[in-house]
Amino acid sequence: MKRFLLPLGLLSVLVGGRTRADEGMYLLNRPPRELLQKKYRFDLADAWLQRAMKASVRFNNGGSGGFVSPDGLTATNHHVGAGLIQKLSVGGKDYLRDGFYARTCAQELKCPDLELNVLQNITDVTELVQAAVKPGLTPAQAEAARRGAIARIEKESLAKTGLRSDVVTLYHGGLYHLYRYKKYTDVRLVFAPERAGASFGGDVDNFEYPRYCLDVCFFRAYENGAPAQTPDYFRWSTQGPKEGDLVFVSGHPGTTNRLETLARLKHRRDLTLPYTLRLLRQREALYQQFSAESPDQERMARTDLYSVANARKAYTGQYHGLLDPAIIARKAADEAALRQFVDADPKRRKRYGPAWQQIARAEEELAPFEVEYFLLERGDGFDSRLFRIARAIVRLTEEVVKDDADRLREYRSAALESLRFQLFSPAPIYPELERAKLAGSLAFLAEVLGGEHPVVVKALGGKGPAARAAELVAGSKLKDPAARRALVEGGREAAAKSSDTMIRFARLLDDAARALRKRHDELEEVERQAYANIAKARFERHGTSVPPDATFTLRLAFGVVKGYQVAGEEIPFATTFAGLYRRAEEQKYREPFTLPRRWLDGKGKVDLATPMNFVSTADTIGGNSGSPVLNRAGELVGLNFDRNRHGLIRNYVYTDEQARHVSVHCRAVLEALRRLYGADDLTRELTGGR
Amino acid sequence: MKRFLLPLGLLSVLVGGRTRADEGMYLLNRPPRELLQKKYRFDLADAWLQRAMKASVRFNNGGSGGFVSPDGLTATNHHVGAGLIQKLSVGGKDYLRDGFYARTCAQELKCPDLELNVLQNITDVTELVQAAVKPGLTPAQAEAARRGAIARIEKESLAKTGLRSDVVTLYHGGLYHLYRYKKYTDVRLVFAPERAGASFGGDVDNFEYPRYCLDVCFFRAYENGAPAQTPDYFRWSTQGPKEGDLVFVSGHPGTTNRLETLARLKHRRDLTLPYTLRLLRQREALYQQFSAESPDQERMARTDLYSVANARKAYTGQYHGLLDPAIIARKAADEAALRQFVDADPKRRKRYGPAWQQIARAEEELAPFEVEYFLLERGDGFDSRLFRIARAIVRLTEEVVKDDADRLREYRSAALESLRFQLFSPAPIYPELERAKLAGSLAFLAEVLGGEHPVVVKALGGKGPAARAAELVAGSKLKDPAARRALVEGGREAAAKSSDTMIRFARLLDDAARALRKRHDELEEVERQAYANIAKARFERHGTSVPPDATFTLRLAFGVVKGYQVAGEEIPFATTFAGLYRRAEEQKYREPFTLPRRWLDGKGKVDLATPMNFVSTADTIGGNSGSPVLNRAGELVGLNFDRNRHGLIRNYVYTDEQARHVSVHCRAVLEALRRLYGADDLTRELTGGR
Repeated sequence: MKRFLLPLGLLSVLVGGRTRADEGMYLLNRPPRELLQKKYRFDLADAWLQRAMKASVRFNNGGSGGFVSPDGLTATNHHVGAGLIQKLSVGGKDYLRDGFYARTCAQELKCPDLELNVLQNITDVTELVQAAVKPGLTPAQAEAARRGAIARIEKESLAKTGLRSDVVTLYHGGLYHLYRYKKYTDVRLVFAPERAGASFGGDVDNFEYPRYCLDVCFFRAYENGAPAQTPDYFRWSTQGPKEGDLVFVSGHPGTTNRLETLARLKHRRDLTLPYTLRLLRQREALYQQFSAESPDQERMARTDLYSVANARKAYTGQYHGLLDPAIIARKAADEAALRQFVDADPKRRKRYGPAWQQIARAEEELAPFEVEYFLLERGDGFDSRLFRIARAIVRLTEEVVKDDADRLREYRSAALESLRFQLFSPAPIYPELERAKLAGSLAFLAEVLGGEHPVVVKALGGKGPAARAAELVAGSKLKDPAARRALVEGGREAAAKSSDTMIRFARLLDDAARALRKRHDELEEVERQAYANIAKARFERHGTSVPPDATFTLRLAFGVVKGYQVAGEEIPFATTFAGLYRRAEEQKYREPFTLPRRWLDGKGKVDLATPMNFVSTADTIGGNSGSPVLNRAGELVGLNFDRNRHGLIRNYVYTDEQARHVSVHCRAVLEALRRLYGADDLTRELTGGR
Repeated sequence: MKRFLLPLGLLSVLVGGRTRADEGMYLLNRPPRELLQKKYRFDLADAWLQRAMKASVRFNNGGSGGFVSPDGLTATNHHVGAGLIQKLSVGGKDYLRDGFYARTCAQELKCPDLELNVLQNITDVTELVQAAVKPGLTPAQAEAARRGAIARIEKESLAKTGLRSDVVTLYHGGLYHLYRYKKYTDVRLVFAPERAGASFGGDVDNFEYPRYCLDVCFFRAYENGAPAQTPDYFRWSTQGPKEGDLVFVSGHPGTTNRLETLARLKHRRDLTLPYTLRLLRQREALYQQFSAESPDQERMARTDLYSVANARKAYTGQYHGLLDPAIIARKAADEAALRQFVDADPKRRKRYGPAWQQIARAEEELAPFEVEYFLLERGDGFDSRLFRIARAIVRLTEEVVKDDADRLREYRSAALESLRFQLFSPAPIYPELERAKLAGSLAFLAEVLGGEHPVVVKALGGKGPAARAAELVAGSKLKDPAARRALVEGGREAAAKSSDTMIRFARLLDDAARALRKRHDELEEVERQAYANIAKARFERHGTSVPPDATFTLRLAFGVVKGYQVAGEEIPFATTFAGLYRRAEEQKYREPFTLPRRWLDGKGKVDLATPMNFVSTADTIGGNSGSPVLNRAGELVGLNFDRNRHGLIRNYVYTDEQARHVSVHCRAVLEALRRLYGADDLTRELTGGR
């Protein structure tokens, strides 16, 4: 633990003699009880923890949220809900631009493909998984054996409990836990503000602070056509936090890389991140140009553009972090200390010593084909929803006839229900956007691999990128969910015989893609085994108090509500509505600082001193968007929606000198709902009639 | 000639049996008299040609223009003048946004660093240059000998005539011509419309048609403090062209690659263009984000953003063209035909046969370090005006003490006056923009070369990119032209001893950059010799009727005013003011389709049927922006400002099925000046009181 609470001294961005910090995204079954007791005199009661687990909601499109009433009302960030809100904007409606409020349940809008997961329990299955991998297996055999064991555990759990069952790899292979979720697939939109108010400041203010965003929206989970009963829920605080208050974040951080070896980090710095930034910039430029061409196109590409701009900013921050020699030096020192501990004992040295070199070798083997793997197997070269559907159909029909243990992981029995739910989604697909994205990504494929690479020649099929994309989109019927169903029901033969251009395109490239996948997964297995040994070494040194890297599973973080300094200037812990109106005026109300009409007109009705956003030191990362921020009493005092720029390096190191996560203040939501939206019923449901 | 007028049959974009086209950017001393006579029954008189030469103006910041009155009045595109208009916008003024009109000469604004060149005569110096390169020299020796010969010719010419003297390499080394220019460095802004009207449609409509841009502005050349006397000028037509009219474009096309070998084109496709697109996207994203942060920053970065977006769109079109297998096939067939001609005769075969292989080998040798050359020597990794100034000072002080023949080409005697004019420009430099650009490009340097590349380590100096950029900008006094002068006057020693951070930074990297330059220039020499042989083979086969690739020197192109079809739809040859107002409304007046207040209010005063923009088949490329478009009588009927998207592949192949260049119609300018701007004096000067 100590070394994770002490990474600060050597960081060039930090000064002073702090010796403790609030690092940690803790597993719910390994909560930091002692630490909280010692540092904050807080007694983490079982009931508190149980509610945190059963009222926290995972948005399967990549975010977090929480139940905020006993009737399935679910709060999350507007930017987590945006993709859904956009999909619901059909028939001339534009709920992203105009906002939405269902005054009655009957008016709530059912999302085409939103699945919510609520964690019910966690079981350690490490021994079961590791036992399947007998000594002496080749990486390919070991990978297959491990995959088979995991699929079996999940399948049995699903059959036994009816709950969504996911085996999660922790510590990059050190532990395997079975997570069982209650699943909601009938989820309806209740309330969303105008996007201009939810994302005030847009890309400019993203990952910055001070902020002024009402980044919130509400859905409702349904079961059997009626609002779900959710007795475990977070009460919405009418007060919110004060400076210095202890707060908790209960949500689903996506990915951190803090326990990765130095070789892996350098690989990220020199290969993965530069490629990722190149890809994101290409996409962002393309989506922007597409959007600029007409107001209609702007609407079609809006959430794609948001998500790529957000990723570009996040990865740029990560990359700059890894270019900071002080951060690399710190990581090197950490690694050296652990290796020294390992080398100090002959038995440990024999068992764990080779792990670092094994990972470094795997990275070396990965380097020459990683980008090709991203382009072909991850699909970066075919940026098209129709393509993703086509590949899913082609692979699904091939995989389901195999034994569960032999399938690609995403087609194992336990995953099929969620997969079909996505695959048959009736969400609209825009051919003009598909054409533009596919043409751009085919050109990108060529840019990276070269014009005469066999895959490029095959993918272009003797045409330029634009002509090829036009032909592929025009000849596909996969826009229609019924066509997808027919192919899936027709099985392998139907897919093989299909004349659908996109199905044929997916088939054309599938052997090459699968071959890359195989090479990749074998190297991953090599690393997993090595990381298992590193994890053991770490457990021997520190016990299990060092939490594992984030894995888009439920974690508990904690910290203190607290401002910070930038270049000598004090940044207060909270902003206000007054600050919002001031910033809009300073920016002359130009994009992305426009305000909704309702907000401009309603300025006089709002108490301008109401807190808008606030920051704390708790440890969060992407995926935590929409996470409930809780006080000691377990009440919801805010919704996390961002980190500031100093927090962008949190993938690699935690700092709290300036790094903060940013939340919507609970009172901002109540004030806006009451004064600007007249949403009295919703306010009453949130406050339990208080 | 024939093969250059016949590249169409094999292009996938083209159909039908056209057998002639209007390809060609002709040298003024090798005009296409016979062709024009035969095809258009036009007699290209000496007087017509002399006026075209002496009234055409080169804007040294990268564009074209023309004298349009006997008193030095010069017309060009607004986007050519934009950088100057921005530099003139000091003290709270924003002439790019608001436009500018000097009703009297006294109100005209002197540009800080605009140099205009007007070609006076051309002399063939091929034999002199080639004679300097004795047989048996190594590439390094040959390169030095050639550079020395060219510097000598230029220096002697300058001494003899007082005219700016540039030796231009044609046919990539086939011919060397000495161009002598009259030079104007006192140039003043007369009129510019609001940017919203000049660049209506912005990046969205750039390289598209139909278009509606008043992309024009006027400067005036001065001599000895008074308006220059320019008896050779183009009369401004009050009529303009009709469909089917023969027109000429007299301007300075920048670069084409039509005579490059297939190996070179594939190198461009697989290395140079992908890198270029990667660079441009990184810069565009950075400039956009910088602009979005505040209205002030938007103003600072406006012309940088325009120029990078424009380049990104142009290079994307070029790249997509080279991905079209039909275009590569056509280039391969052309090359095969010429090589067959060479191989058919043993003497030719011996002399010229090895040239293609020599070029292919040079490209192979270039491949591993080209990108490093771009980053270090071209300076892509140090995107900062202060850096460019620092490097120029460091190198200038080192080079001037050498013999003229031993200097880097850009520091030869004949070039120094223009170089100092740029270097000591008082144009404003914005530290915040410098910091952002330098930080972004330092990170880009690392992205491309890797975090542990010695140059990256040196450039970052133990800091992250943002911290390093901040330190370099803060510690430099080069914002102040007087500091630059002092260093230049202090010579080598002053530069070596300087504690200016940016000077030290430029010195730190200069050895590595110069080493790359040397390797690059030697390979260029190898190619130049090989291209000289290919050119000779071509002359033997076709005579000298095939014009050389564009070199930012004066050329004459011709074509026909003519609409075209897209997907069955007729695109008329001209647009109107009515179309402009319609498009703005369709786009809901959102950026970049806003209109200046004056244009909205003045709609009722304008004759909406007035032609706005028009297209012709004449052969143009970037650098032709602002070129006068002339009728048979030599009157100015328009100002070229763009190509449509089908013309983006003109770097490699000319087509005229759909490809068109786009011009501002002469009547649009008169109508706007009269009805919207009340610029009666200017109108009178243009029409000679007519």
